[in-house]
Amino acid sequence: MNTPIIRYILGHVLRIEGLLLLLPCLIAVYFREEQGIYFLLTAAICILLGAVMTRNKPQNSIFYLKEGCVATALSWIFLSIFGCLPFWFSGEIPSFTNALFETISGFTTTGASILEDVEELSHCALFWRSFTHWIGGMGVLVFLLAIIPMSGGSNINLMRAESPGPSVGKLVPKIGSTARILYGIYFGLTLLQIVLLFLNGMPLFDSVTTSIGTAGTGGFGIRADSMAGYSVTLQWIVTIFMILFGVNFNFYYFFLFRQFRKAFGMEEVRGYLLIILASVAIITWNIRGMTAGIFDALTQAAFQVASIITTTGFATTNFDLWPQASRTILVMLMFVGACAGSTGGGIKVSRFLISIKSVICELRSYIHPKVISTVKIDGKPVDQDVVRATNLYFVTFLLLFSASVFALSLENQDLVTNFTAVAATINNIGPGLSQVGPAANFNFFHIFSKYILMFDMLAGRLEFFPLLILLHPTMWRDLAANTNKKRQLSKFNK
Amino acid sequence: MNTPIIRYILGHVLRIEGLLLLLPCLIAVYFREEQGIYFLLTAAICILLGAVMTRNKPQNSIFYLKEGCVATALSWIFLSIFGCLPFWFSGEIPSFTNALFETISGFTTTGASILEDVEELSHCALFWRSFTHWIGGMGVLVFLLAIIPMSGGSNINLMRAESPGPSVGKLVPKIGSTARILYGIYFGLTLLQIVLLFLNGMPLFDSVTTSIGTAGTGGFGIRADSMAGYSVTLQWIVTIFMILFGVNFNFYYFFLFRQFRKAFGMEEVRGYLLIILASVAIITWNIRGMTAGIFDALTQAAFQVASIITTTGFATTNFDLWPQASRTILVMLMFVGACAGSTGGGIKVSRFLISIKSVICELRSYIHPKVISTVKIDGKPVDQDVVRATNLYFVTFLLLFSASVFALSLENQDLVTNFTAVAATINNIGPGLSQVGPAANFNFFHIFSKYILMFDMLAGRLEFFPLLILLHPTMWRDLAANTNKKRQLSKFNK
Repeated sequence: MNTPIIRYILGHVLRIEGLLLLLPCLIAVYFREEQGIYFLLTAAICILLGAVMTRNKPQNSIFYLKEGCVATALSWIFLSIFGCLPFWFSGEIPSFTNALFETISGFTTTGASILEDVEELSHCALFWRSFTHWIGGMGVLVFLLAIIPMSGGSNINLMRAESPGPSVGKLVPKIGSTARILYGIYFGLTLLQIVLLFLNGMPLFDSVTTSIGTAGTGGFGIRADSMAGYSVTLQWIVTIFMILFGVNFNFYYFFLFRQFRKAFGMEEVRGYLLIILASVAIITWNIRGMTAGIFDALTQAAFQVASIITTTGFATTNFDLWPQASRTILVMLMFVGACAGSTGGGIKVSRFLISIKSVICELRSYIHPKVISTVKIDGKPVDQDVVRATNLYFVTFLLLFSASVFALSLENQDLVTNFTAVAATINNIGPGLSQVGPAANFNFFHIFSKYILMFDMLAGRLEFFPLLILLHPTMWRDLAANTNKKRQLSKFNK
Repeated sequence: MNTPIIRYILGHVLRIEGLLLLLPCLIAVYFREEQGIYFLLTAAICILLGAVMTRNKPQNSIFYLKEGCVATALSWIFLSIFGCLPFWFSGEIPSFTNALFETISGFTTTGASILEDVEELSHCALFWRSFTHWIGGMGVLVFLLAIIPMSGGSNINLMRAESPGPSVGKLVPKIGSTARILYGIYFGLTLLQIVLLFLNGMPLFDSVTTSIGTAGTGGFGIRADSMAGYSVTLQWIVTIFMILFGVNFNFYYFFLFRQFRKAFGMEEVRGYLLIILASVAIITWNIRGMTAGIFDALTQAAFQVASIITTTGFATTNFDLWPQASRTILVMLMFVGACAGSTGGGIKVSRFLISIKSVICELRSYIHPKVISTVKIDGKPVDQDVVRATNLYFVTFLLLFSASVFALSLENQDLVTNFTAVAATINNIGPGLSQVGPAANFNFFHIFSKYILMFDMLAGRLEFFPLLILLHPTMWRDLAANTNKKRQLSKFNK
């Protein structure tokens, strides 16, 4: 294994995190909050450590999928551990486990919180909390690729390990340019949302934190009632932007380059919109008796559906009180998730498309054994390897999911709490039902369960394999062998 | 499509059912119950109709997987519809939907009941109820193959469509002999259980119904408290036989032919026993405070674990009152299910083995991209097609499962009821948790939900594809085209 390149990448990740930590410092200066000092301290630690780790550029910069996975998994773990320090240092979140939980929940764009009262937090802490969503939404390594020129064509492996969805296409031949285009779209849409919210009467600070939380499909609110206190217009703006950030970014790319037919022909985007429409329609009808009128029902249904399917996790109402049919739809949407290549989590619409089509193919092969039928998306046949990987993804998901539910069950909460807590973290949504419903938080869990849920958040965001590889014994043998070799070499040099 | 051969097979199935219906008539004669007349009437209908349908032997007896699937699906639907008539005619179950539910639950070896008070039923009805488990456990088409010589080697397709598990091996070159050996083992084990129960003090009628219910891994009890009223010895005998009937029957075949190393080397059987041991150990420890002592806890844990993993569904205690960890284990075991090639339902241990191994293979391919690693079971590589079909099975399962839970949710029961009701029917177990717990029944569901659950029971028993093929539009076009051709032919002949 190429350990030097992994060290080098981790160093860069830390340096970037250090620079990003300066933003909450500015917020602290503006609001004259003393907590800013802890952000400055952490920033200094990150930048110094990063500088040390990136001092020697590795001679061999080529790395394979293995290195890509390890670098990705470790980057996210590093990001989270260093990112939680300001909360812990300042005492705003006194327990390290809770601070880490909140930060992992931020970077993985989950939005599950352990805070009893979010309004107690300082502005700089609130901003950093939402900002972790924005960083995690697009992926920090994609950002790295966008700004740091890395030699060799093999860094597609970095992007592949971090990006959500069954397959990553390079939009343009150069991976760095792809990353820059993606971040450009991301930045532009976020800015547009901030402006629209601000113009419609939301305070600037709220507009910024809400927009970066929406963009990353994160879900941390800065108010105890999440989004319920804002006007209907503001709620609809957030609804629409949540849906927009759940769309496959290739759509915007095609749109930008005026390939409208390609853009609107994307089966995944159509499927995604169709699911949203159908769910909103059923829920509106189902909850019409509980609301002030059909328009109110529509507003609530649309907001909650958009929030759950995009795995954002904002709420304007306690949907745990809705009738069973509506709640069941929400639980199902938790698993569906957004489009691949968006900032949203979950299993992804395209995976469902591929799986449903492969089941239909199988049926067809029973009926016409001599005709070989292949799965097609957007008119193009899907590679057999992608179909295989997709079905394998479902199986891995199932196994990790049930193991987590069992681990949580040792605590004797009810089944719905355990089931939806795991669903809400592994799919990076935020709130679940029952004791982890939108009106509750995750603080009551035992420390053991919290670490299980943190693992699930990271595993869900990185789509299992990068994190599971890190747990594979061969990996540790590899790393150990590498270190031994180095030690022997240094002995030899003496 | 070869419609004549399907008609011919269905005719034979009806004739067999007619003959089997004579057994409850004998019971009625012995207990002097007038309900026997309705069994006799149904038997006559089946035999007459069967005779008409088998009058013309089809010229072309070759059929493919397609015909195998259709014949299987229709056979099970016919069996259930005709099998429920005695309950309906006699008025012992006044509603046709309920009678059909009970009968499908019987043949699919589910054991979910709509009866409020089972002890009200006549002996002949109780016997028929349990006997459907025994018929459905091994499969009626396997029985057909065992007794009726069918020409052509392609009737492996019939067995493949009906037998549970990822792949059916022919034990001996001739499929008829395989079927006879399987039924021999089945019959022998059932007889042994009857004798053991009877010798330990269970009344003969109870011994017979309990044993045929155990053999089919069905779960209909003849008492309101299921098995709780019997002595501890009897409970342990049932526990052990439930476990025995959940073992892959190839094990007994190897055992019979003194291939002990092969028998004890079967990874699936080892995995199955390991899961049982681990679950019993954890649950015993978990419920020790609720029982009369550690042995009582062990007895209860072993019985319930064996009952759920083999998807039998008997109960000696209301496990819905157990602590959450134990209940979560039971819910997980509901999905694991028994071994392939046994009479049990569920997803099957071998599918989990194949899936877990294929995930490990995938991880290995990330680490060593140049080494091609294949999934191996019992030291032999598993065919790529089987791996693919297994992963596809999981996906189909997930899709049907969530659709069913949603359909049930329209009724506004709680999520745990809906979730475990679907789990208990699709996996052919019987009781679930909450409102469908072991102390409750399925009668409160709306008629719409009942038909959903009936579909799930059949789909689960036939492992989806035979039933789904029947729903495929091409199939109906095929059947229609065939009928049209025949009509045109008969016109031409005139």
